[in-house]
Amino acid sequence: MPRAWTLRARPKGLPQPSDFDLIDLPAAPLSEGEVRVANTWLSVDPYMRGRMNDVKSYVPPFVLGEPMQGGALGEVIESNAPDVPVGTRVQHMLGWRDEAVLPAAQVQKLPDIDVPEQAFLGQFGMPGMTAYFGLLQVAEAREGDVVFVSAAAGAVGSTVVQIAKAKGMTVIGSAGGAEKCAWVKSLGADAVIDYKAGDVVQALADAAPQGIDVYFDNVGGDHFDAALLAARLHARFAICGMIDIYNEGQPQSLKYLFKVIGARIAIKGFLVGDHLAGVADFYRDMGEWLAAGKLTREETVHEGLETAPQAFLGLFTGGNRGKMLVRV
Amino acid sequence: MPRAWTLRARPKGLPQPSDFDLIDLPAAPLSEGEVRVANTWLSVDPYMRGRMNDVKSYVPPFVLGEPMQGGALGEVIESNAPDVPVGTRVQHMLGWRDEAVLPAAQVQKLPDIDVPEQAFLGQFGMPGMTAYFGLLQVAEAREGDVVFVSAAAGAVGSTVVQIAKAKGMTVIGSAGGAEKCAWVKSLGADAVIDYKAGDVVQALADAAPQGIDVYFDNVGGDHFDAALLAARLHARFAICGMIDIYNEGQPQSLKYLFKVIGARIAIKGFLVGDHLAGVADFYRDMGEWLAAGKLTREETVHEGLETAPQAFLGLFTGGNRGKMLVRV
Repeated sequence: MPRAWTLRARPKGLPQPSDFDLIDLPAAPLSEGEVRVANTWLSVDPYMRGRMNDVKSYVPPFVLGEPMQGGALGEVIESNAPDVPVGTRVQHMLGWRDEAVLPAAQVQKLPDIDVPEQAFLGQFGMPGMTAYFGLLQVAEAREGDVVFVSAAAGAVGSTVVQIAKAKGMTVIGSAGGAEKCAWVKSLGADAVIDYKAGDVVQALADAAPQGIDVYFDNVGGDHFDAALLAARLHARFAICGMIDIYNEGQPQSLKYLFKVIGARIAIKGFLVGDHLAGVADFYRDMGEWLAAGKLTREETVHEGLETAPQAFLGLFTGGNRGKMLVRV
Repeated sequence: MPRAWTLRARPKGLPQPSDFDLIDLPAAPLSEGEVRVANTWLSVDPYMRGRMNDVKSYVPPFVLGEPMQGGALGEVIESNAPDVPVGTRVQHMLGWRDEAVLPAAQVQKLPDIDVPEQAFLGQFGMPGMTAYFGLLQVAEAREGDVVFVSAAAGAVGSTVVQIAKAKGMTVIGSAGGAEKCAWVKSLGADAVIDYKAGDVVQALADAAPQGIDVYFDNVGGDHFDAALLAARLHARFAICGMIDIYNEGQPQSLKYLFKVIGARIAIKGFLVGDHLAGVADFYRDMGEWLAAGKLTREETVHEGLETAPQAFLGLFTGGNRGKMLVRV
């Protein structure tokens, strides 16, 4: 019997395992145009935390007691849609479950790029596109720029580091702990800040004595403030996620917001979905960099649908290096 | 004997009268190419507070014990520069004094627009340009937009209100106290928030139930947070000044910064000096609106060089309606 994770209660602050329920799904016969997908990989991503709050946002909140959603991929095992036959490998947004029933129009066939399929939930999927469009379109980062990226050992951040290096930029990444920092360095970062080892503001000032041109923000908080202080004239900030805010629900305290005026900083929030018109460029460039050996991936894999909440919670406690995934 | 105001001590927080000294200036014979200007009007502006701190910024800090600088205008009373003869009325940046000696290349003749000359320190000068370029270029405000502007009774804010109305926008202004609010309403604002009368966040939510497209920020703090919460999709913020930050030196506490992502807000700091390439457009449009009766000005005038610090301090305590000026 297929199963799915539901939200039992809306978390306050950091979610707890008790906020989630694994339920049996009723048998769902296929309607015309629908397919049944046996999920093989599920994605857990920081933005899902926002959907656990009962507030209007860019995506509707999860409904209590109903299966949650999220990126997933798998194989079509039953089809009422001639163009998506049984055996097709697809990705879709009905994650957090082992089997998904949905209209064929809501699944995408996997692109023809020679990577393990789970990479389409990571570097060659939404997190990779977030890195690519955020860095190159939103922040308009160019060769020669000094780029600072937080959560640089994460799925998005680690790809930002590598795209920036492939494009001839100087990159400073932050990550938590010596092991992750060493990995970020191995990706090509010119400097790495261990945010657990001391004050981020001072560390960034030391790492970038001439300042930064671009900040790719995945966390908010002190990192954001450090970037404000370090910002050079006409710096651009791409704001992708603020993990600190998702969970804390507390005010952000910023000492250096005034720098926005003198340095003429442009701060732009973005969602990757706004940039999908450029997806062909993404696959082309990423394919070239992959072939040239310029891209490295890591995955942190949790085994079994049962582990999905644990995988998700790990996003907020520094539990992942590269993309956090659940193998069903 | 000419006199000038100097900074005796760098203020902590809100400046005090005791931070300033009025000194006699030594006799200064003219060098080749220089002019002597008898100042008739001096400008005091919030940005000057930043120059009183000993920190690197977009303009160098004032030097303790030396005459301060700022916008001023007056009449040339002695000239070693053939193209700027005695009797020419000019503006320049050697304010805070009754007489200025400087190269003719550093003075500008007053534009040929039929307004009282002191307007060239206000609505037809730097504050007016700040309003014009900030609203139309930085925030890219367009007909139909809902615009929120803080310090709407100030020199910049009151001009933002009027330009926005001339361009067919809906405008919500904030000001402190019933009298100023009534004046802002009389300028054409569709709604006015008295920030002294209650919570700005709630007041803006009430005044703009459908949200705002543009925020023109003159103050930072709660107003900035209110604008974040009220921001519609793709809202643009032009950050011109943050009076709260200039003086407090304290962190800004923002509850709603996370909105930057979902609403894809673009926040841009700017300085008017970056936009002077468009100054002919400014004079043309402002001249047309003036002729069409769409522009109103107010000035708060302090009489005598002695009153300059008092005028300046009034900027931070709500002492001005329209442009704050000193008549020498």
